Amino acid sequence: MTRIVVALGGNAIARAGERGTWEEARAHARQAVAPLAKLAKKGHEVVLTHGNGPQVGNLLLQQESVRDVPPLPLDAVGAATQGWIGYLLQQELGTALLRAHVPRTVVPIVTRVEVNARDPAFKSPSKPVGRYYEENEAHLLMKQKGWVMRHDMARGGWRRIVPSPLPRRLVEGGALRSLLDAGLGRRVVPIVAGGGGVPVVERGKGRYEGVEAVIDKDRTASLIATSVGASELAILTDVPYVCAAFHTPRERRIGRTTPDALRRLLENGEFGEGSMRPKVEAALDFQDHGGTRAVITDIDHFSAALRGQAGTVLEPLHED
Amino acid sequence: MTRIVVALGGNAIARAGERGTWEEARAHARQAVAPLAKLAKKGHEVVLTHGNGPQVGNLLLQQESVRDVPPLPLDAVGAATQGWIGYLLQQELGTALLRAHVPRTVVPIVTRVEVNARDPAFKSPSKPVGRYYEENEAHLLMKQKGWVMRHDMARGGWRRIVPSPLPRRLVEGGALRSLLDAGLGRRVVPIVAGGGGVPVVERGKGRYEGVEAVIDKDRTASLIATSVGASELAILTDVPYVCAAFHTPRERRIGRTTPDALRRLLENGEFGEGSMRPKVEAALDFQDHGGTRAVITDIDHFSAALRGQAGTVLEPLHED
Repeated sequence: MTRIVVALGGNAIARAGERGTWEEARAHARQAVAPLAKLAKKGHEVVLTHGNGPQVGNLLLQQESVRDVPPLPLDAVGAATQGWIGYLLQQELGTALLRAHVPRTVVPIVTRVEVNARDPAFKSPSKPVGRYYEENEAHLLMKQKGWVMRHDMARGGWRRIVPSPLPRRLVEGGALRSLLDAGLGRRVVPIVAGGGGVPVVERGKGRYEGVEAVIDKDRTASLIATSVGASELAILTDVPYVCAAFHTPRERRIGRTTPDALRRLLENGEFGEGSMRPKVEAALDFQDHGGTRAVITDIDHFSAALRGQAGTVLEPLHED
Repeated sequence: MTRIVVALGGNAIARAGERGTWEEARAHARQAVAPLAKLAKKGHEVVLTHGNGPQVGNLLLQQESVRDVPPLPLDAVGAATQGWIGYLLQQELGTALLRAHVPRTVVPIVTRVEVNARDPAFKSPSKPVGRYYEENEAHLLMKQKGWVMRHDMARGGWRRIVPSPLPRRLVEGGALRSLLDAGLGRRVVPIVAGGGGVPVVERGKGRYEGVEAVIDKDRTASLIATSVGASELAILTDVPYVCAAFHTPRERRIGRTTPDALRRLLENGEFGEGSMRPKVEAALDFQDHGGTRAVITDIDHFSAALRGQAGTVLEPLHED
């Protein structure tokens, strides 16, 4: 029996080119949770996490569009997406578990992730969020709310830019681990730290203040896996393998590999900043903290990857 | 040591006449959670629930206001409010617990509540939700989405009306009870079934489908209390006492009372449909299911009410 943390990518909820309806989200979620029910059926303990990029963007857009209703801050909007995406996955995974005759309850938990108030990311915000604004509106918002905004040449509008600090600690991590260690991992499937978690900083010992930032969900997945003492971490995305030199003539798939080999490719700059790099870093980070195996693949190859027959599988060299 | 379920009323988050900002919500929440930290300090197990009426209304308004982003259905919007209100209370209660030196983690859980697909409420929707529409828009929505809408004379607009069925079962109730019975009630404070819970109906054994409805949060509070085997239920609202014949010359406060006496007043029609009646019914329902004590009061009188020195306190007659 293994304790495994699974991180679902954005395509488990929405895909480019679609309208983004609830029915589309349900269909994608249904497909994404199928291999998780199989894992649970085998007796493994499963902890689930997920992204929220497009969803937090849409909700912000809506928050900023009704004059008489003051918008929630970004941290609270993130918590709202943990609520509804958690519910979506709870419904679909609940049904899949039932069909597989696995008596487990899916329990989405609103989860905060502590970041360091001195993280350099706070000095150089990098992630665009929310809607596009006209120049005069943008100047007003920068002045009134202290937002950092950037002009987007391609779209011809101004957009808010927020920091993306590194996750440091799962605030609810101790409680989650107690729950699992009390044997509840065979009764429940927790869904935690959706969208990378709600970012908070510590102001005085143990008192947390929300911050308007976004945390990379793969980095948080690695932190979750370490916090709950998981032996496996699976990062599910929209490609079956990590590729080195992606989209170049010398592109090649990475199958089974070791931390040392993967780290060399990372240091060579083989992975794209906004795509594979955070996933590779998360997998390596998990290994550095004693994880047994990290897998990066897509939903269709997930079961095979766990048998070592597909996907990018990161394992230390065993001397046997 | 007592297991107590506390239901926070709407004034724990927002008050009439305010703008409804995040800062206002934080200030109210901070005040509302203060007595809960005291309860936990005394060693009691606390399970928290809360309303979401104005918040779900605002979020729906925003959902319906951006042309390019399809709105989420009402059940998912309810789950989103469980997310952000859960986070709000988690932050403020977390800080209050810390200051009281109580090492407990606040864990908001997305919770579904099963309602009966044959509940008569589905045939006579009664709760107005979301924004006001013009007559031609309203007719289109009724035709396209099958909404039930009603013309509001006072405001001169059309509004969607949804059913308010009775809560039947907490879908995550078994898991919650396992968690508490494993002794985790002294490690965590669960926040569950916010806004009365996300309403679902069972379609085939154990497969739940969301429905666009709202559930009375006090009724759900009673169900939570019964599901987790709590001995006490506290319903916190904006008045210190339930009054009989409220706002009439023969108005009188109800202090300590028995189920029989309170039921007689209820049957006499002494309590207003939209205000005290559901609270009184919830308190009686909890008693009917073996609860020891139910309290209805406001935040300021809560601690005194638990000592039997304030509030409306419902207890069976003890023959001693």
